[in-house]
Amino acid sequence: MPAPTRADRNRRLAADFRLGKRPALARAISMVEGRRPGVADLLQELLLARPQARRFGITGPPGAGKSSLVAGLATLLRGRGEEVAIVAVDPTSPYSGGALLGDRIRMNDLATDPGIFIRSMATRGSLGGLAATTREVVDLLDAFGFPNVLVETVGVGQTELEIASAADSVAVVLVPESGDGIQAMKAGLMEIADLFVVNKADRVGADRMVREIRQALALRAGHGMQGVPAHHGVDLTRLGGAEEEPGAADVTAWDIPVLKTSAGRGEGIEGFLDGLVAHNRYLNESGVLAERRERRARSRLRDVIVGRLRGRAEAFLASNPDLPGRIADIAAGRATTYGVADELIPAILKGAEKSGHG
Amino acid sequence: MPAPTRADRNRRLAADFRLGKRPALARAISMVEGRRPGVADLLQELLLARPQARRFGITGPPGAGKSSLVAGLATLLRGRGEEVAIVAVDPTSPYSGGALLGDRIRMNDLATDPGIFIRSMATRGSLGGLAATTREVVDLLDAFGFPNVLVETVGVGQTELEIASAADSVAVVLVPESGDGIQAMKAGLMEIADLFVVNKADRVGADRMVREIRQALALRAGHGMQGVPAHHGVDLTRLGGAEEEPGAADVTAWDIPVLKTSAGRGEGIEGFLDGLVAHNRYLNESGVLAERRERRARSRLRDVIVGRLRGRAEAFLASNPDLPGRIADIAAGRATTYGVADELIPAILKGAEKSGHG
Repeated sequence: MPAPTRADRNRRLAADFRLGKRPALARAISMVEGRRPGVADLLQELLLARPQARRFGITGPPGAGKSSLVAGLATLLRGRGEEVAIVAVDPTSPYSGGALLGDRIRMNDLATDPGIFIRSMATRGSLGGLAATTREVVDLLDAFGFPNVLVETVGVGQTELEIASAADSVAVVLVPESGDGIQAMKAGLMEIADLFVVNKADRVGADRMVREIRQALALRAGHGMQGVPAHHGVDLTRLGGAEEEPGAADVTAWDIPVLKTSAGRGEGIEGFLDGLVAHNRYLNESGVLAERRERRARSRLRDVIVGRLRGRAEAFLASNPDLPGRIADIAAGRATTYGVADELIPAILKGAEKSGHG
Repeated sequence: MPAPTRADRNRRLAADFRLGKRPALARAISMVEGRRPGVADLLQELLLARPQARRFGITGPPGAGKSSLVAGLATLLRGRGEEVAIVAVDPTSPYSGGALLGDRIRMNDLATDPGIFIRSMATRGSLGGLAATTREVVDLLDAFGFPNVLVETVGVGQTELEIASAADSVAVVLVPESGDGIQAMKAGLMEIADLFVVNKADRVGADRMVREIRQALALRAGHGMQGVPAHHGVDLTRLGGAEEEPGAADVTAWDIPVLKTSAGRGEGIEGFLDGLVAHNRYLNESGVLAERRERRARSRLRDVIVGRLRGRAEAFLASNPDLPGRIADIAAGRATTYGVADELIPAILKGAEKSGHG
């Protein structure tokens, strides 16, 4: 009997995945993380399905209590009988070296619940790559059938925000003592936050921070940016309950809520979950979800195309016998990067085209 | 008289740059930062020169006192009659929103000294782009004739390390209370540090941190990694003085020194500068500098080529009338990103090749 080919192995993996076998899911995720050969074919097969899951992103600075909030959300969802997948992404800082969020969650009760799937991801390499990987992992969890996917990431920079935005709804978690209410507004957080959560709300300064965030949101709405005036908003108290009729409220606009939680005391988590669910409903009913998905599909398509072109360029550079001499020229100031790039690009395109066709 | 063309303007800018006119330097830097049209041609003209400057990178976590150290180094160099350019790069964190390092420096005595040039850079966009821009700005400062270029960056992630490595010699600044001596070792800092500096060395824990870093360095050397055993090292006490004969010490290896400074009290700065100068001498005399420059030239060439291919892909995507339909297919799960990418790539290569030749 001949040894199974890669295509055979992918076919069996896809079959097991569709049967809901967890090891197949874990293996598919590992293939995506490791960028293994054949992963594109596998994803072609597994991801041809309409997205169904609610995708919630939770981001915020280190120490804001995101892990506890995520654990609380997952516990509530389980109490409602729903399965939950958690992706904990730690874009490893060379300074913090912090423990993976998923590792911490793993230690508590959730880990033994078969209705919960937890995956930690980290990187020492390209953060851009990590954002792309996260999106694909979330797609896999969705295709596998999880109705809820929580993406938790430490927000310390621009790229972490990209990771959070692998989700449809993004909650930004802040804490009173970080004193970054207004700072946060300045720095582009508002462009990704669908909800703000002030955690550790029992501490001094929580109400002030809530007030500051609300003021900044109002200011932004007043300036004609993406925010909307309050009277257009979705009434959270009506949309929050899972039993309610969809369409009961105005779903054409979304007011970014500023919620208070105390993950340590277990307070406010239900309101937080209701806020996320309400936002998901708003996304669906307003048509904004389709828009967001198309925007994401466009940027991902560009990334995949650029990644393939990069691969072709790297293969060419690795095999070109004249390259070391030209690189020495650049290093010594006898040629410039741009000049040598212009020399090489026509050959890269031709070579790439040939190998693409032949 | 016809209006000046872009080529005319570039020629005049290049002429002024070569005459040492500061406004021309500032304008060239702005063109690089803004990725203005024609910038590649300008760089082609300005950067065809052998690199001469000592390029020192200073990185470390927020609050480590990097700005004060850089100000101290610049003051010492000025005292020796040398001009200094400072590039302060702040890869804007959406949470910290910290003041630009260069802004803080600007406020003190240095700002009025014509022998000092300070430029602050920041981004809300791609950090990868910022690293590339920083390298080009340092090249410009070198070509302009500054014998010393100090690159200061807040180190909070992988990409910031790339920014720091636009320099030839990289110093990593830590402080006792950050308690990240051993953590730092784990997280890849050792791959970029040519010197370690424990700043605020008057505080509790400084000596312990120095010891921990030294132990980690020894461990690493023992494991056959890039470090070298102590007896092969450059004797800093001999190499430190500017008056000394080059070649007086063994320059075939470099022991990463762990220095103590107290920028606030002005202590240890001279030793820090001596360490940087010694490392620069080691790089030159050992041939390691040429190797590093070639490695950097190679990665930069790849980046420029990939950037141009990305530009061609984006132009194609922007003009393809079938694209919105295919993107909607991906978003709805009727097609996958990889499948659509494979459809489009041959046309991108062909189109790009045509426009490249025609």
